[in-house]
Amino acid sequence: MTDLTLTTFDWVPEIPRGYVRDIRVRWALEEAGLPYRVNAVPFGDRGAEHFSHQPFGQVPWLTDGDISIFESGAILLHLGKRSDGTLLPTDPRRRSETIEWLFAALNSVEMASLPWSLFMFSGDTEDTPGRKSLDKFLESRLQHLDSVLTDRDWLAGSFSVADILMADVLRLVDRFDGLAEYPACRDYVSRATARPAFEKALADQMAHFAAAD
Amino acid sequence: MTDLTLTTFDWVPEIPRGYVRDIRVRWALEEAGLPYRVNAVPFGDRGAEHFSHQPFGQVPWLTDGDISIFESGAILLHLGKRSDGTLLPTDPRRRSETIEWLFAALNSVEMASLPWSLFMFSGDTEDTPGRKSLDKFLESRLQHLDSVLTDRDWLAGSFSVADILMADVLRLVDRFDGLAEYPACRDYVSRATARPAFEKALADQMAHFAAAD
Repeated sequence: MTDLTLTTFDWVPEIPRGYVRDIRVRWALEEAGLPYRVNAVPFGDRGAEHFSHQPFGQVPWLTDGDISIFESGAILLHLGKRSDGTLLPTDPRRRSETIEWLFAALNSVEMASLPWSLFMFSGDTEDTPGRKSLDKFLESRLQHLDSVLTDRDWLAGSFSVADILMADVLRLVDRFDGLAEYPACRDYVSRATARPAFEKALADQMAHFAAAD
Repeated sequence: MTDLTLTTFDWVPEIPRGYVRDIRVRWALEEAGLPYRVNAVPFGDRGAEHFSHQPFGQVPWLTDGDISIFESGAILLHLGKRSDGTLLPTDPRRRSETIEWLFAALNSVEMASLPWSLFMFSGDTEDTPGRKSLDKFLESRLQHLDSVLTDRDWLAGSFSVADILMADVLRLVDRFDGLAEYPACRDYVSRATARPAFEKALADQMAHFAAAD
């Protein structure tokens, strides 16, 4: 048993609470039943030690013994491997499917949805040519994803690390009502976030930041 | 020896040529010295067979025996594992570093840079609040990456799959002169694209699409 420590900020403003990416790691750890500790670093003053673990000055990172990992995708892949097949199948073909969907959550969907959410956060409604491209980019990804999710409960056979990432990516779209025309995506988010491990992860993140107020 | 087949479009318009994502896969295959075939699917009419391999209707995908993989990140991770340590170190700590940087290329940098490039392609120069957020997002990622690349030639010790992804992500920023203030990023792109495997991959992609004109 190695020693898992999740590092996140000590505090964040109200708006991102519930959506800070440590929730992906908490959720995976809870699903896998792996014990862990939570460590906090200053939100306001990010020093050299912080950048040595996360070169973009973001959170989270995870330490597992003497290995320190940043990027929620890399952390979830690592935890999947540690979950004894629970969150990442051991069968080669199913494992490969899970890994491609894990990347798809980040690089096909979030690459469109997170920038879109920056415009939503800004309250920016100007219909410029670039904005039209961005909206169309997200729309195309959600349309295809909705077709996929019409036929299945989870992306790769059974619930996996890919679903943790995809559901968390879609939650932020849903926050701005961006899933209104994609019922299968909306149902998928409801199904995923009804899991006790998600509920605990969310409650723990909210309590962590509230404790610092 | 299994049978590797890379699938890309049969044709694309002039503008994306040289930047279609099959180049990442070609580059990795050339670096690893793995033999492969190239298969083409219609750009214009994407059918059910296409979507069964790539659910977003994009390219590339790779088949390795009876396994079919989409997402350039997932494909490069797979090829890294097949490269006998050439593109993905076998030492656990160095392998973990390489994987986190592979994700960082896609989810920390490309998530900011690709949407920004959509605005550049559109010729959209309107300085709206959302656009300001997007520019700031990319700027912050490139600033931190520039610091990292000031001290090292490659992201994780030696040249790896992470560098193929990061260099290809940065090439598209460079196309719109977005690296002007980030000399270490610019030098990194020059260093990476001077590799014979990249030069062959680029020439092969250009020839593939030119043959269809």
